[in-house]
Amino acid sequence: MSQPVTSTQAPESLSLGELTTLLQQIFERHGTSSAVAGVLADNCARAQRDGSYSHGVFRIPGYLSSLASNWVNGQAVPVVEDVASGFIRVDAAGGFAQPALAAARQLLVEKARSAGIAVLAIRNSHHFAALWPDVEPFAEEGLVALSVVNSMTCVVPHGAHKPLFGTNPIAFAAPCADGHPIVFDLATSAIAHGDVQIAARKGHMLPAGMGVDKHGEPTENPKEILDGGALLPFGGHKGSALSMMVELLAAALTGGNFSFEFDWSKHPGAQTPWTGQLLIVIDPTKSGGNSFAQRSAELVRQMHVVGLERMPGDRRFIERAKSQEAGIPMGAEELAKLRALAE
Amino acid sequence: MSQPVTSTQAPESLSLGELTTLLQQIFERHGTSSAVAGVLADNCARAQRDGSYSHGVFRIPGYLSSLASNWVNGQAVPVVEDVASGFIRVDAAGGFAQPALAAARQLLVEKARSAGIAVLAIRNSHHFAALWPDVEPFAEEGLVALSVVNSMTCVVPHGAHKPLFGTNPIAFAAPCADGHPIVFDLATSAIAHGDVQIAARKGHMLPAGMGVDKHGEPTENPKEILDGGALLPFGGHKGSALSMMVELLAAALTGGNFSFEFDWSKHPGAQTPWTGQLLIVIDPTKSGGNSFAQRSAELVRQMHVVGLERMPGDRRFIERAKSQEAGIPMGAEELAKLRALAE
Repeated sequence: MSQPVTSTQAPESLSLGELTTLLQQIFERHGTSSAVAGVLADNCARAQRDGSYSHGVFRIPGYLSSLASNWVNGQAVPVVEDVASGFIRVDAAGGFAQPALAAARQLLVEKARSAGIAVLAIRNSHHFAALWPDVEPFAEEGLVALSVVNSMTCVVPHGAHKPLFGTNPIAFAAPCADGHPIVFDLATSAIAHGDVQIAARKGHMLPAGMGVDKHGEPTENPKEILDGGALLPFGGHKGSALSMMVELLAAALTGGNFSFEFDWSKHPGAQTPWTGQLLIVIDPTKSGGNSFAQRSAELVRQMHVVGLERMPGDRRFIERAKSQEAGIPMGAEELAKLRALAE
Repeated sequence: MSQPVTSTQAPESLSLGELTTLLQQIFERHGTSSAVAGVLADNCARAQRDGSYSHGVFRIPGYLSSLASNWVNGQAVPVVEDVASGFIRVDAAGGFAQPALAAARQLLVEKARSAGIAVLAIRNSHHFAALWPDVEPFAEEGLVALSVVNSMTCVVPHGAHKPLFGTNPIAFAAPCADGHPIVFDLATSAIAHGDVQIAARKGHMLPAGMGVDKHGEPTENPKEILDGGALLPFGGHKGSALSMMVELLAAALTGGNFSFEFDWSKHPGAQTPWTGQLLIVIDPTKSGGNSFAQRSAELVRQMHVVGLERMPGDRRFIERAKSQEAGIPMGAEELAKLRALAE
């Protein structure tokens, strides 16, 4: 904080463009193509801007060690297959999922607007980011989007003894007339792995129902979860059913791996799950009658009438506005590390 | 029981065909068209056969009082609109949702097989049944189906003080090579209203987190929930987000009412929610590569390997097999009441 101020922003605050450029340099420096670097940098910088710190620059070491291990192909060129009037397949070719989505995105929007609904099935892909950045832009174009991605074995199906499912998030975005789109992104696990790690470091206990120890017994001790234990699904048998659905949609339906199928043991440092992702995009103008965005604004209004103070996603929009005003705050040490990685 | 046995089945056991015929007579006797009666009778009899008692003949009085109150139109003829290669709208014309689905079903399957995915948006409809019967038949034809329906205000959004959402179920069905389809049907409320009523009658307390009293305070007393209180979503903010998504998909996207929008105060006896329903059907053969049904069977196999004893839906399939073997068991008094209603 004692660094000299050379502009209207303190050196620890970056614009979105500055952070994106820095991250792009880092990705390129560590073996990705320029195209892949651009997509990943944009995704990661937007997460950081919105205060999604668990999926912001915090992820950079995991990206780089996965690239260094030759587990994920940073040069992959996705292959888009136009299968039917509402169905697109993409083979991500062992690369990241976001460039695969970017390669098919325009065709997906065209199909959704023409057919009323379209599905994008991505396989052979690595998804290491938040899921909301994949759906939110569709809502900004007036479309409704739903996405699921499976990940890596760490969640015990309800009624089972050992982990099988990934944290398997579900993300949804819909346009809203009065303000930001309605967006949520929720893991079907009871808690994120990162939060368990933080609790373990701080010596805090967890609420009941978050995880089990290595013997499959319920525990509130985060260290026992990390020491060969596992997470539980959120909401008992219901969250477990949804996590199962994510495996079916993101893997069985795309041709990708289930969360328990890939073996990265020969790639020390690998952290990115090699699975699949499904996106469904709907054009609400096809539903006729009242404007969808007006109707969703009415739902939001009524949610506030019954006492809701914060919509899902509101915290991100607040952080975004702050970052747009004052720049994206970065610790000096963190920024120095990133700059060193870019050299 | 001591009744005389006049056939190989005791009089308290009916075949699916016998129960369906009896229920069809009841619906027709109480003002529905023959077409509507056939659809509702089939739905209700199948629920009873599968041991889904809360959505079997238990629902008949609610159906009949709603019809008698002129709240729902038992003679309604659904209007199907073919909007795009993947999008169908149906105006249920103030009738039940199931005949609206039946009217559009063949077109929906054709569109899903042609476009790869198709959506059916039903509005101006009353859904008073279980949701799994709407999706399971698609899986039996090799398709993947997802449906959501909103209902009536009884669930407090997470972070709010008063109820707004309905119990808003989500149902999913997918083909599976080795045996029954994979099917689940879950309310996004923490507990079903029927289970609260049963607990109140028995004088049992509920687990924590199921509902609130009329002041919005958490309670484990089912009587306080019923006396002006409300239910909570399952799984805290995550289940609440999913319930919100159901409102957006089943109402905003279809042109139907939100769960809080209809007013049945001038129709004493009305029990059926006047809302909307969305179905999404996907043809997994478009995904190429391995057979989807083989892949889902592999997921089920691995779920059993990690210790799962019962899949979602297994209880229904077990009850179904029993009913097919020995007939659908019916109490003598219950059956006499049904027969009286059919006269």
